[in-house]
Amino acid sequence: MSIEEEIDRKRKKIDELIEEFLPEEEGYARTVAEAVNYSVRAGGKRIRPMLLLETHKLFHGAVLPEAKALAAALELVHTYSLVHDDLPAMDNDELRRGQPTTHKKYGEAVGILAGDALLNLSMQVAVQAFRRPSEPMIVAKAIQDLYDKAGIDGMIGGQTADVLAEKNKKEIDKKELDFIYDKKTGALIEAAMMIGCRLAPESREKDVAAVERAAKLIGLAFQIQDDILDVEGIEELIGKPVGSDYRNGKSTYVNFAGMKQAKKDVADLTEEAVGLMMPYVDEDDFLIRLMRFLAKRDH
Amino acid sequence: MSIEEEIDRKRKKIDELIEEFLPEEEGYARTVAEAVNYSVRAGGKRIRPMLLLETHKLFHGAVLPEAKALAAALELVHTYSLVHDDLPAMDNDELRRGQPTTHKKYGEAVGILAGDALLNLSMQVAVQAFRRPSEPMIVAKAIQDLYDKAGIDGMIGGQTADVLAEKNKKEIDKKELDFIYDKKTGALIEAAMMIGCRLAPESREKDVAAVERAAKLIGLAFQIQDDILDVEGIEELIGKPVGSDYRNGKSTYVNFAGMKQAKKDVADLTEEAVGLMMPYVDEDDFLIRLMRFLAKRDH
Repeated sequence: MSIEEEIDRKRKKIDELIEEFLPEEEGYARTVAEAVNYSVRAGGKRIRPMLLLETHKLFHGAVLPEAKALAAALELVHTYSLVHDDLPAMDNDELRRGQPTTHKKYGEAVGILAGDALLNLSMQVAVQAFRRPSEPMIVAKAIQDLYDKAGIDGMIGGQTADVLAEKNKKEIDKKELDFIYDKKTGALIEAAMMIGCRLAPESREKDVAAVERAAKLIGLAFQIQDDILDVEGIEELIGKPVGSDYRNGKSTYVNFAGMKQAKKDVADLTEEAVGLMMPYVDEDDFLIRLMRFLAKRDH
Repeated sequence: MSIEEEIDRKRKKIDELIEEFLPEEEGYARTVAEAVNYSVRAGGKRIRPMLLLETHKLFHGAVLPEAKALAAALELVHTYSLVHDDLPAMDNDELRRGQPTTHKKYGEAVGILAGDALLNLSMQVAVQAFRRPSEPMIVAKAIQDLYDKAGIDGMIGGQTADVLAEKNKKEIDKKELDFIYDKKTGALIEAAMMIGCRLAPESREKDVAAVERAAKLIGLAFQIQDDILDVEGIEELIGKPVGSDYRNGKSTYVNFAGMKQAKKDVADLTEEAVGLMMPYVDEDDFLIRLMRFLAKRDH
Protein backbone atom coordinates (compact mmCIF):
# COMPACT_ATOMS: atom_id res chain seq x y z
CA MET A 1 0.00 0.00 0.00
CA SER A 2 1.37 3.46 -0.85
CA ILE A 3 1.64 6.12 1.86
CA GLU A 4 -1.21 8.03 0.15
CA GLU A 5 -3.45 4.96 0.39
CA GLU A 6 -2.47 4.35 4.00
CA ILE A 7 -3.23 7.98 4.90
CA ASP A 8 -6.54 7.76 3.08
CA ARG A 9 -7.56 4.62 4.93
CA LYS A 10 -6.70 6.18 8.29
CA ARG A 11 -8.47 9.40 7.34
CA LYS A 12 -11.67 7.48 6.65
CA LYS A 13 -11.49 5.79 10.05
CA ILE A 14 -11.06 9.20 11.69
CA ASP A 15 -14.07 10.52 9.75
CA GLU A 16 -16.14 7.64 11.15
CA LEU A 17 -14.87 8.33 14.65
CA ILE A 18 -15.81 12.03 14.50
CA GLU A 19 -19.18 11.22 12.95
CA GLU A 20 -20.23 9.47 16.19
CA PHE A 21 -20.01 12.76 18.09
CA LEU A 22 -21.96 14.98 15.66
CA PRO A 23 -25.31 16.49 16.73
CA GLU A 24 -28.78 15.45 15.56
CA GLU A 25 -30.36 17.89 13.13
CA GLU A 26 -33.71 18.44 14.84
CA GLY A 27 -35.89 20.94 16.69
CA TYR A 28 -35.92 24.74 16.62
CA ALA A 29 -32.12 24.91 16.61
CA ARG A 30 -31.61 22.43 13.79
CA THR A 31 -29.94 25.03 11.55
CA VAL A 32 -26.90 25.33 13.80
CA ALA A 33 -26.60 21.53 13.98
CA GLU A 34 -26.75 21.37 10.19
CA ALA A 35 -24.07 24.05 9.93
CA VAL A 36 -21.85 22.19 12.41
CA ASN A 37 -22.21 18.94 10.48
CA TYR A 38 -21.66 20.69 7.15
CA SER A 39 -18.44 22.26 8.46
CA VAL A 40 -17.08 18.95 9.74
CA ARG A 41 -18.13 16.92 6.70
CA ALA A 42 -16.60 19.45 4.29
CA GLY A 43 -13.57 17.23 4.67
CA GLY A 44 -9.99 17.95 5.42
CA LYS A 45 -6.89 15.87 5.72
CA ARG A 46 -7.46 15.11 9.44
CA ILE A 47 -3.70 15.55 9.95
CA ARG A 48 -4.06 16.60 13.59
CA PRO A 49 -6.13 13.65 14.89
CA MET A 50 -3.93 11.36 12.77
CA LEU A 51 -0.76 12.68 14.42
CA LEU A 52 -2.42 12.31 17.84
CA LEU A 53 -3.50 8.71 17.31
CA GLU A 54 -0.25 7.63 15.64
CA THR A 55 1.89 9.18 18.37
CA HIS A 56 -0.34 7.48 20.92
CA LYS A 57 0.08 4.08 19.24
CA LEU A 58 3.81 4.52 19.20
CA PHE A 59 3.93 4.86 22.98
CA HIS A 60 1.07 2.60 23.96
CA GLY A 61 0.88 -0.03 21.21
CA ALA A 62 -2.93 0.15 21.06
CA VAL A 63 -5.39 3.05 21.08
CA LEU A 64 -7.13 3.88 24.37
CA PRO A 65 -10.71 5.23 24.14
CA GLU A 66 -9.59 8.52 25.73
CA ALA A 67 -7.17 9.06 22.81
CA LYS A 68 -10.08 8.66 20.38
CA ALA A 69 -12.16 11.23 22.26
CA LEU A 70 -9.28 13.71 22.35
CA ALA A 71 -8.50 13.15 18.66
CA ALA A 72 -12.11 13.99 17.74
CA ALA A 73 -12.11 16.99 20.09
CA LEU A 74 -8.90 18.31 18.53
CA GLU A 75 -10.34 18.13 15.01
CA LEU A 76 -13.47 19.98 16.22
CA VAL A 77 -11.27 22.75 17.62
CA HIS A 78 -9.43 22.96 14.28
CA THR A 79 -12.77 23.04 12.40
CA TYR A 80 -14.20 25.86 14.52
CA SER A 81 -11.06 27.90 13.89
CA LEU A 82 -11.52 27.54 10.12
CA VAL A 83 -15.23 28.50 10.29
CA HIS A 84 -14.46 31.66 12.24
CA ASP A 85 -11.34 32.46 10.14
CA ASP A 86 -13.51 32.47 7.01
CA LEU A 87 -16.02 35.04 8.38
CA PRO A 88 -16.35 38.40 6.57
CA ALA A 89 -14.79 40.30 9.49
CA MET A 90 -11.81 37.91 9.44
CA ASP A 91 -10.36 36.52 6.14
CA ASN A 92 -13.68 36.88 4.29
CA ASP A 93 -13.38 33.63 2.32
CA GLU A 94 -16.33 32.35 0.32
CA LEU A 95 -14.87 29.01 -0.67
CA ARG A 96 -13.00 26.32 1.25
CA ARG A 97 -11.95 23.10 -0.45
CA GLY A 98 -14.09 24.16 -3.42
CA GLN A 99 -17.31 24.39 -1.34
CA PRO A 100 -19.10 27.47 0.02
CA THR A 101 -17.79 28.36 3.48
CA THR A 102 -20.17 27.81 6.41
CA HIS A 103 -21.27 31.45 6.74
CA LYS A 104 -21.72 31.68 2.97
CA LYS A 105 -24.11 28.76 3.07
CA TYR A 106 -25.95 29.46 6.34
CA GLY A 107 -25.53 33.21 6.81
CA GLU A 108 -23.12 35.08 9.03
CA ALA A 109 -25.04 34.74 12.32
CA VAL A 110 -25.19 30.95 11.98
CA GLY A 111 -21.53 30.96 10.90
CA ILE A 112 -20.60 32.57 14.22
CA LEU A 113 -22.88 30.27 16.22
CA ALA A 114 -21.68 27.14 14.39
CA GLY A 115 -18.08 27.99 15.25
CA ASP A 116 -19.07 28.50 18.88
CA ALA A 117 -21.01 25.24 18.81
CA LEU A 118 -17.98 23.37 17.41
CA LEU A 119 -15.67 24.67 20.14
CA ASN A 120 -18.30 23.88 22.78
CA LEU A 121 -18.81 20.41 21.26
CA SER A 122 -15.06 19.78 21.42
CA MET A 123 -15.30 20.15 25.19
CA GLN A 124 -18.35 17.86 25.40
CA VAL A 125 -16.39 15.26 23.44
CA ALA A 126 -13.13 15.75 25.38
CA VAL A 127 -14.92 15.19 28.69
CA GLN A 128 -16.18 11.83 27.41
CA ALA A 129 -12.57 10.69 27.82
CA PHE A 130 -13.43 10.41 31.54
CA ARG A 131 -15.98 7.65 30.99
CA ARG A 132 -13.69 4.82 31.91
CA PRO A 133 -10.22 6.32 31.93
CA SER A 134 -7.27 4.36 33.21
CA GLU A 135 -5.92 7.54 34.78
CA PRO A 136 -8.31 10.50 35.26
CA MET A 137 -5.51 12.92 36.16
CA ILE A 138 -3.67 12.13 32.92
CA VAL A 139 -6.85 12.80 30.95
CA ALA A 140 -7.26 16.13 32.78
CA LYS A 141 -3.68 17.07 31.85
CA ALA A 142 -4.30 16.16 28.19
CA ILE A 143 -7.42 18.34 28.07
CA GLN A 144 -5.43 21.16 29.64
CA ASP A 145 -2.81 20.73 26.87
CA LEU A 146 -5.51 20.98 24.21
CA TYR A 147 -7.04 24.26 25.40
CA ASP A 148 -3.71 25.80 26.40
CA LYS A 149 -2.50 25.25 22.84
CA ALA A 150 -5.81 26.45 21.34
CA GLY A 151 -6.12 29.61 23.45
CA ILE A 152 -4.60 33.06 23.75
CA ASP A 153 -1.09 31.69 24.33
CA GLY A 154 -1.56 29.41 21.32
CA MET A 155 -3.75 29.34 18.24
CA ILE A 156 -6.02 32.29 19.09
CA GLY A 157 -2.94 34.41 19.83
CA GLY A 158 -1.56 33.54 16.38
CA GLN A 159 -4.87 34.27 14.66
CA THR A 160 -5.04 37.64 16.41
CA ALA A 161 -1.53 38.72 15.34
CA ASP A 162 -2.22 37.46 11.81
CA VAL A 163 -5.58 39.15 11.33
CA LEU A 164 -4.44 42.45 12.88
CA ALA A 165 -1.31 42.58 10.69
CA GLU A 166 -3.52 42.12 7.65
CA LYS A 167 -6.26 44.58 8.71
CA ASN A 168 -3.74 47.25 9.66
CA LYS A 169 -1.60 46.59 6.53
CA LYS A 170 1.27 46.27 8.94
CA GLU A 171 4.71 45.31 7.65
CA ILE A 172 5.67 42.44 9.95
CA ASP A 173 9.23 41.34 10.63
CA LYS A 174 10.57 37.79 10.62
CA LYS A 175 10.16 37.55 14.39
CA GLU A 176 6.45 38.28 14.23
CA LEU A 177 6.01 35.91 11.27
CA ASP A 178 7.69 33.17 13.32
CA PHE A 179 5.30 33.93 16.18
CA ILE A 180 2.26 33.68 13.90
CA TYR A 181 3.42 30.39 12.34
CA ASP A 182 4.35 28.90 15.68
CA LYS A 183 0.99 29.76 17.23
CA LYS A 184 -1.57 29.78 14.44
CA THR A 185 -0.51 26.50 12.81
CA GLY A 186 2.08 25.03 15.13
CA ALA A 187 0.18 25.04 18.41
CA LEU A 188 -2.49 22.49 17.46
CA ILE A 189 0.10 20.21 15.85
CA GLU A 190 2.03 20.34 19.12
CA ALA A 191 -1.20 19.57 20.99
CA ALA A 192 -1.81 16.59 18.70
CA MET A 193 1.49 14.86 19.31
CA MET A 194 1.82 15.85 22.99
CA ILE A 195 -1.63 14.55 23.84
CA GLY A 196 -1.07 11.31 21.95
CA CYS A 197 2.09 10.78 23.96
CA ARG A 198 0.67 11.91 27.29
CA LEU A 199 -2.34 9.58 27.12
CA ALA A 200 -0.05 6.57 26.89
CA PRO A 201 0.35 5.46 30.52
CA GLU A 202 3.91 4.37 29.61
CA SER A 203 5.14 7.84 28.67
CA ARG A 204 7.12 10.10 31.00
CA GLU A 205 7.07 13.90 31.21
CA LYS A 206 10.39 14.11 29.34
CA ASP A 207 8.92 12.07 26.48
CA VAL A 208 6.01 14.51 26.23
CA ALA A 209 8.50 17.40 26.11
CA ALA A 210 10.58 15.74 23.36
CA VAL A 211 7.48 15.02 21.30
CA GLU A 212 6.33 18.63 21.76
CA ARG A 213 9.66 19.86 20.36
CA ALA A 214 9.43 17.52 17.37
CA ALA A 215 5.85 18.68 16.72
CA LYS A 216 6.91 22.33 16.80
CA LEU A 217 9.41 21.66 13.99
CA ILE A 218 6.85 19.67 11.99
CA GLY A 219 4.31 22.47 12.38
CA LEU A 220 6.78 25.04 11.08
CA ALA A 221 7.78 22.80 8.15
CA PHE A 222 4.07 22.30 7.40
CA GLN A 223 3.42 26.04 7.26
CA ILE A 224 6.51 26.79 5.13
CA GLN A 225 5.38 24.07 2.71
CA ASP A 226 2.01 25.87 2.51
CA ASP A 227 3.85 29.05 1.50
CA ILE A 228 5.84 27.15 -1.11
CA LEU A 229 2.65 25.66 -2.54
CA ASP A 230 1.13 29.13 -2.70
CA VAL A 231 3.88 29.98 -5.21
CA GLU A 232 4.55 26.69 -6.98
CA GLY A 233 1.43 24.62 -6.31
CA ILE A 234 -1.13 23.40 -8.82
CA GLU A 235 -4.43 25.23 -8.42
CA GLU A 236 -6.58 22.10 -8.80
CA LEU A 237 -4.64 20.37 -6.02
CA ILE A 238 -4.34 23.17 -3.45
CA GLY A 239 -8.00 24.25 -3.93
CA LYS A 240 -7.28 28.00 -4.17
CA PRO A 241 -5.64 30.25 -6.75
CA VAL A 242 -1.85 29.96 -6.87
CA GLY A 243 -0.17 33.15 -5.70
CA SER A 244 -3.11 34.41 -3.62
CA ASP A 245 -0.98 35.21 -0.57
CA TYR A 246 1.47 37.03 -2.84
CA ARG A 247 -1.28 39.12 -4.42
CA ASN A 248 -2.82 39.87 -1.03
CA GLY A 249 0.55 41.32 -0.03
CA LYS A 250 0.88 38.74 2.76
CA SER A 251 4.36 38.30 4.19
CA THR A 252 5.36 34.67 3.93
CA TYR A 253 8.39 32.61 4.80
CA VAL A 254 9.30 32.49 1.10
CA ASN A 255 9.50 36.32 1.02
CA PHE A 256 11.93 36.36 3.91
CA ALA A 257 14.09 33.34 3.12
CA GLY A 258 13.76 32.93 -0.66
CA MET A 259 12.38 29.82 -2.34
CA LYS A 260 15.60 27.81 -2.32
CA GLN A 261 16.22 28.30 1.39
CA ALA A 262 12.55 27.70 2.20
CA LYS A 263 12.68 24.29 0.53
CA LYS A 264 15.90 23.42 2.31
CA ASP A 265 14.38 24.48 5.63
CA VAL A 266 11.32 22.26 5.18
CA ALA A 267 13.60 19.28 4.60
CA ASP A 268 15.95 20.16 7.46
CA LEU A 269 13.19 20.86 9.98
CA THR A 270 11.50 17.57 9.12
CA GLU A 271 14.71 15.59 9.57
CA GLU A 272 15.44 17.38 12.84
CA ALA A 273 11.94 16.41 14.05
CA VAL A 274 12.49 12.81 12.91
CA GLY A 275 15.78 12.85 14.82
CA LEU A 276 14.00 13.88 18.03
CA MET A 277 11.56 10.99 17.61
CA MET A 278 14.29 8.40 16.96
CA PRO A 279 14.56 7.16 20.56
CA TYR A 280 10.94 6.04 20.24
CA VAL A 281 10.54 4.84 16.67
CA ASP A 282 11.86 2.86 13.73
CA GLU A 283 12.52 4.58 10.39
CA ASP A 284 9.71 2.55 8.91
CA ASP A 285 6.99 3.50 11.45
CA PHE A 286 3.94 5.08 9.88
CA LEU A 287 4.35 8.25 11.98
CA ILE A 288 7.82 8.88 10.53
CA ARG A 289 6.62 8.23 7.01
CA LEU A 290 3.69 10.59 7.65
CA MET A 291 6.02 13.33 8.93
CA ARG A 292 8.17 13.01 5.79
CA PHE A 293 5.12 12.89 3.56
CA LEU A 294 3.79 16.17 5.01
CA ALA A 295 7.03 17.89 4.00
CA LYS A 296 6.67 16.68 0.41
CA ARG A 297 2.92 17.06 -0.06
CA ASP A 298 1.62 18.86 -3.13
CA HIS A 299 -1.65 20.07 -1.48
CA MET B 1 -27.15 44.15 55.98
CA SER B 2 -29.73 44.51 53.19
CA ILE B 3 -30.02 41.85 50.50
CA GLU B 4 -28.62 44.38 48.00
CA GLU B 5 -25.55 44.91 50.19
CA GLU B 6 -25.11 41.17 50.68
CA ILE B 7 -25.34 40.56 46.92
CA ASP B 8 -22.87 43.34 46.29
CA ARG B 9 -20.37 41.94 48.76
CA LYS B 10 -20.60 38.48 47.19
CA ARG B 11 -20.38 39.95 43.69
CA LYS B 12 -17.10 41.66 44.58
CA LYS B 13 -15.67 38.39 45.87
CA ILE B 14 -16.66 36.69 42.62
CA ASP B 15 -15.00 39.50 40.63
CA GLU B 16 -11.78 38.86 42.57
CA LEU B 17 -12.07 35.13 41.95
CA ILE B 18 -12.48 35.58 38.18
CA GLU B 19 -9.68 38.16 38.07
CA GLU B 20 -7.17 35.44 39.03
CA PHE B 21 -7.85 33.58 35.81
CA LEU B 22 -7.60 36.50 33.36
CA PRO B 23 -4.78 36.60 30.78
CA GLU B 24 -1.69 38.84 30.82
CA GLU B 25 -1.83 41.66 28.27
CA GLU B 26 1.50 41.14 26.53
CA GLY B 27 3.20 40.11 23.29
CA TYR B 28 1.96 40.15 19.71
CA ALA B 29 -1.50 38.92 20.74
CA ARG B 30 -2.02 41.42 23.52
CA THR B 31 -5.05 42.98 21.83
CA VAL B 32 -7.16 39.85 22.26
CA ALA B 33 -6.12 39.60 25.92
CA GLU B 34 -7.12 43.24 26.42
CA ALA B 35 -10.48 42.58 24.75
CA VAL B 36 -11.07 39.52 26.95
CA ASN B 37 -10.28 41.47 30.10
CA TYR B 38 -12.39 44.42 28.97
CA SER B 39 -15.36 42.12 28.35
CA VAL B 40 -15.09 40.48 31.76
CA ARG B 41 -14.43 43.70 33.67
CA ALA B 42 -17.39 45.47 32.00
CA GLY B 43 -19.23 44.13 35.02
CA GLY B 44 -22.41 42.24 35.36
CA LYS B 45 -24.42 40.95 38.24
CA ARG B 46 -22.51 37.62 38.39
CA ILE B 47 -25.82 35.90 39.08
CA ARG B 48 -24.73 32.57 37.61
CA PRO B 49 -21.53 32.04 39.63
CA MET B 50 -23.39 33.34 42.70
CA LEU B 51 -26.14 30.74 42.26
CA LEU B 52 -23.49 28.05 41.74
CA LEU B 53 -21.50 28.92 44.86
CA GLU B 54 -24.57 29.44 47.06
CA THR B 55 -26.14 26.14 45.98
CA HIS B 56 -22.81 24.46 46.61
CA LYS B 57 -22.57 25.93 50.12
CA LEU B 58 -26.08 24.74 50.87
CA PHE B 59 -25.13 21.12 50.20
CA HIS B 60 -21.52 21.14 51.34
CA GLY B 61 -21.33 23.80 54.04
CA ALA B 62 -18.04 25.17 52.70
CA VAL B 63 -16.79 25.97 49.20
CA LEU B 64 -14.48 23.44 47.53
CA PRO B 65 -11.79 24.82 45.15
CA GLU B 66 -13.39 22.93 42.25
CA ALA B 67 -16.63 24.91 42.81
CA LYS B 68 -14.66 28.16 42.53
CA ALA B 69 -13.07 27.04 39.25
CA LEU B 70 -16.44 26.01 37.80
CA ALA B 71 -18.08 29.26 38.96
CA ALA B 72 -15.42 31.31 37.14
CA ALA B 73 -15.67 29.07 34.05
CA LEU B 74 -19.45 29.50 33.98
CA GLU B 75 -19.20 33.30 34.06
CA LEU B 76 -16.63 33.19 31.23
CA VAL B 77 -19.08 31.13 29.15
CA HIS B 78 -21.82 33.68 29.87
CA THR B 79 -19.45 36.55 28.95
CA TYR B 80 -18.42 35.01 25.61
CA SER B 81 -22.10 34.56 24.73
CA LEU B 82 -22.73 38.28 25.33
CA VAL B 83 -19.70 39.34 23.25
CA HIS B 84 -20.81 37.23 20.29
CA ASP B 85 -24.50 38.18 20.72
CA ASP B 86 -23.54 41.85 20.37
CA LEU B 87 -21.73 41.36 17.02
CA PRO B 88 -23.10 43.19 13.95
CA ALA B 89 -24.19 39.90 12.33
CA MET B 90 -26.08 38.98 15.51
CA ASP B 91 -27.94 41.62 17.62
CA ASN B 92 -25.67 44.45 16.44
CA ASP B 93 -25.51 46.21 19.79
CA GLU B 94 -23.09 49.08 20.31
CA LEU B 95 -23.61 49.54 24.04
CA ARG B 96 -23.79 47.14 26.94
CA ARG B 97 -24.20 48.41 30.48
CA GLY B 98 -23.57 51.89 29.14
CA GLN B 99 -20.12 50.99 27.72
CA PRO B 100 -19.11 50.30 24.10
CA THR B 101 -19.48 46.60 23.29
CA THR B 102 -16.27 44.62 22.77
CA HIS B 103 -16.39 44.65 18.95
CA LYS B 104 -17.22 48.36 18.99
CA LYS B 105 -14.11 49.07 21.01
CA TYR B 106 -11.67 46.60 19.42
CA GLY B 107 -13.12 45.96 15.95
CA GLU B 108 -15.20 43.09 14.70
CA ALA B 109 -12.35 40.61 14.10
CA VAL B 110 -11.09 40.99 17.66
CA GLY B 111 -14.70 40.80 18.90
CA ILE B 112 -15.02 37.37 17.32
CA LEU B 113 -11.60 36.24 18.58
CA ALA B 114 -12.23 37.59 22.10
CA GLY B 115 -15.46 35.57 22.33
CA ASP B 116 -13.61 32.47 21.16
CA ALA B 117 -10.84 33.21 23.64
CA LEU B 118 -13.35 33.54 26.50
CA LEU B 119 -14.99 30.20 25.69
CA ASN B 120 -11.57 28.57 25.34
CA LEU B 121 -10.45 30.18 28.62
CA SER B 122 -13.53 28.80 30.36
CA MET B 123 -12.26 25.33 29.48
CA GLN B 124 -8.74 26.09 30.71
CA VAL B 125 -10.26 27.29 33.98
CA ALA B 126 -12.72 24.41 34.32
CA VAL B 127 -9.93 21.86 33.93
CA GLN B 128 -8.10 23.47 36.85
CA ALA B 129 -10.81 21.91 39.01
CA PHE B 130 -8.81 18.69 38.63
CA ARG B 131 -5.80 20.06 40.48
CA ARG B 132 -6.60 18.38 43.79
CA PRO B 133 -10.19 17.27 43.44
CA SER B 134 -11.77 15.12 46.09
CA GLU B 135 -13.55 13.17 43.35
CA PRO B 136 -12.25 13.49 39.77
CA MET B 137 -15.24 11.71 38.26
CA ILE B 138 -17.65 14.18 39.93
CA VAL B 139 -15.63 17.08 38.51
CA ALA B 140 -15.81 15.48 35.05
CA LYS B 141 -19.60 15.20 35.37
CA ALA B 142 -19.87 18.85 36.44
CA ILE B 143 -17.84 19.98 33.41
CA GLN B 144 -20.05 17.83 31.20
CA ASP B 145 -23.11 19.61 32.72
CA LEU B 146 -21.61 23.00 31.93
CA TYR B 147 -20.93 22.38 28.24
CA ASP B 148 -24.10 20.33 27.68
CA LYS B 149 -26.11 23.30 28.96
CA ALA B 150 -24.00 25.80 26.97
CA GLY B 151 -24.11 23.90 23.67
CA ILE B 152 -26.49 23.09 20.83
CA ASP B 153 -29.00 21.41 23.17
CA GLY B 154 -28.79 24.40 25.48
CA MET B 155 -27.76 28.03 25.18
CA ILE B 156 -26.42 27.97 21.60
CA GLY B 157 -29.63 26.26 20.49
CA GLY B 158 -31.66 29.05 22.10
CA GLN B 159 -29.47 31.77 20.56
CA THR B 160 -29.88 30.17 17.14
CA ALA B 161 -33.69 30.02 17.32
CA ASP B 162 -33.77 33.58 18.67
CA VAL B 163 -31.48 35.14 16.07
CA LEU B 164 -33.09 33.29 13.15
CA ALA B 165 -36.60 34.33 14.22
CA GLU B 166 -35.41 37.92 14.30
CA LYS B 167 -33.43 37.81 11.00
CA ASN B 168 -36.28 36.09 9.16
CA LYS B 169 -38.93 38.35 10.74
CA LYS B 170 -40.64 35.14 11.73
CA GLU B 171 -43.82 35.24 13.83
CA ILE B 172 -43.01 32.76 16.61
CA ASP B 173 -45.63 30.95 18.68
CA LYS B 174 -45.65 30.55 22.45
CA LYS B 175 -44.07 27.10 22.18
CA GLU B 176 -41.03 28.47 20.34
CA LEU B 177 -40.78 31.41 22.76
CA ASP B 178 -40.75 28.94 25.65
CA PHE B 179 -37.97 27.01 23.88
CA ILE B 180 -35.89 30.16 23.41
CA TYR B 181 -36.32 31.27 27.05
CA ASP B 182 -35.64 27.81 28.40
CA LYS B 183 -32.44 27.45 26.37
CA LYS B 184 -31.03 30.92 25.86
CA THR B 185 -31.40 32.13 29.45
CA GLY B 186 -32.51 29.08 31.40
CA ALA B 187 -29.80 26.61 30.46
CA LEU B 188 -26.87 28.41 32.12
CA ILE B 189 -28.94 29.07 35.26
CA GLU B 190 -29.70 25.36 35.40
CA ALA B 191 -25.98 24.65 34.92
CA ALA B 192 -25.17 27.01 37.80
CA MET B 193 -27.37 25.36 40.39
CA MET B 194 -26.85 21.78 39.20
CA ILE B 195 -23.07 22.12 39.24
CA GLY B 196 -23.10 23.71 42.67
CA CYS B 197 -25.12 20.78 43.95
CA ARG B 198 -23.19 18.10 42.09
CA LEU B 199 -19.79 19.24 43.35
CA ALA B 200 -20.92 18.71 46.94
CA PRO B 201 -19.80 15.15 47.72
CA GLU B 202 -22.90 14.86 49.97
CA SER B 203 -25.42 15.34 47.17
CA ARG B 204 -27.21 12.50 45.40
CA GLU B 205 -28.34 12.29 41.77
CA LYS B 206 -31.94 12.99 42.81
CA ASP B 207 -30.87 16.19 44.57
CA VAL B 208 -29.14 17.36 41.39
CA ALA B 209 -32.34 16.65 39.45
CA ALA B 210 -34.51 18.58 41.97
CA VAL B 211 -32.14 21.54 41.88
CA GLU B 212 -32.16 21.46 38.07
CA ARG B 213 -35.97 21.71 38.09
CA ALA B 214 -35.91 24.61 40.54
CA ALA B 215 -33.31 26.40 38.41
CA LYS B 216 -35.41 25.95 35.28
CA LEU B 217 -38.29 27.81 36.99
CA ILE B 218 -35.97 30.54 38.26
CA GLY B 219 -34.52 30.98 34.78
CA LEU B 220 -37.96 31.41 33.27
CA ALA B 221 -39.02 33.87 36.00
CA PHE B 222 -35.77 35.77 35.39
CA GLN B 223 -36.45 36.09 31.67
CA ILE B 224 -40.10 37.12 32.14
CA GLN B 225 -38.95 39.77 34.61
CA ASP B 226 -36.60 41.04 31.87
CA ASP B 227 -39.60 41.39 29.55
CA ILE B 228 -41.56 43.22 32.24
CA LEU B 229 -38.65 45.62 32.80
CA ASP B 230 -38.49 46.26 29.06
CA VAL B 231 -41.98 47.74 29.38
CA GLU B 232 -42.04 49.18 32.89
CA GLY B 233 -38.39 49.58 33.80
CA ILE B 234 -36.47 52.79 34.40
CA GLU B 235 -34.01 53.48 31.61
CA GLU B 236 -31.18 54.56 33.94
CA LEU B 237 -31.51 51.30 35.89
CA ILE B 238 -31.90 48.78 33.07
CA GLY B 239 -29.12 50.40 30.98
CA LYS B 240 -31.03 50.37 27.69
CA PRO B 241 -34.02 52.27 26.31
CA VAL B 242 -37.36 51.17 27.78
CA GLY B 243 -39.56 49.50 25.18
CA SER B 244 -36.71 48.50 22.85
CA ASP B 245 -37.95 44.90 22.45
CA TYR B 246 -41.43 46.23 21.71
CA ARG B 247 -40.14 48.64 19.06
CA ASN B 248 -37.97 45.91 17.50
CA GLY B 249 -41.14 43.87 17.08
CA LYS B 250 -39.75 41.14 19.34
CA SER B 251 -42.26 38.66 20.69
CA THR B 252 -42.03 38.60 24.47
CA TYR B 253 -43.80 36.80 27.27
CA VAL B 254 -45.71 40.00 28.04
CA ASN B 255 -47.17 39.98 24.49
CA PHE B 256 -48.47 36.47 24.92
CA ALA B 257 -49.66 36.54 28.52
CA GLY B 258 -50.39 40.21 29.18
CA MET B 259 -48.65 42.26 31.88
CA LYS B 260 -50.86 41.23 34.77
CA GLN B 261 -50.45 37.51 34.13
CA ALA B 262 -46.71 37.94 33.46
CA LYS B 263 -46.22 39.47 36.92
CA LYS B 264 -48.27 36.75 38.55
CA ASP B 265 -46.24 34.10 36.72
CA VAL B 266 -42.91 35.53 37.91
CA ALA B 267 -44.13 35.34 41.51
CA ASP B 268 -45.67 31.86 41.10
CA LEU B 269 -42.64 30.38 39.30
CA THR B 270 -40.33 31.76 41.98
CA GLU B 271 -42.40 30.30 44.82
CA GLU B 272 -42.62 26.96 43.02
CA ALA B 273 -38.82 26.96 42.73
CA VAL B 274 -38.48 27.87 46.41
CA GLY B 275 -40.82 24.97 47.20
CA LEU B 276 -38.60 22.52 45.34
CA MET B 277 -35.60 23.71 47.35
CA MET B 278 -37.42 23.45 50.70
CA PRO B 279 -36.13 19.96 51.61
CA TYR B 280 -32.62 21.44 51.57
CA VAL B 281 -32.96 24.95 52.95
CA ASP B 282 -34.38 27.32 55.52
CA GLU B 283 -36.56 30.25 54.45
CA ASP B 284 -33.83 32.57 55.64
CA ASP B 285 -30.96 31.05 53.64
CA PHE B 286 -29.24 33.53 51.35
CA LEU B 287 -29.99 31.39 48.28
CA ILE B 288 -33.74 31.64 48.91
CA ARG B 289 -33.55 35.36 49.53
CA LEU B 290 -31.51 35.70 46.31
CA MET B 291 -34.11 33.72 44.34
CA ARG B 292 -36.88 35.98 45.63
CA PHE B 293 -34.81 39.09 45.02
CA LEU B 294 -34.25 38.15 41.36
CA ALA B 295 -38.01 38.05 40.84
CA LYS B 296 -38.39 41.55 42.24
CA ARG B 297 -35.31 43.20 40.75
CA ASP B 298 -35.69 46.51 38.95
CA HIS B 299 -32.68 46.03 36.63
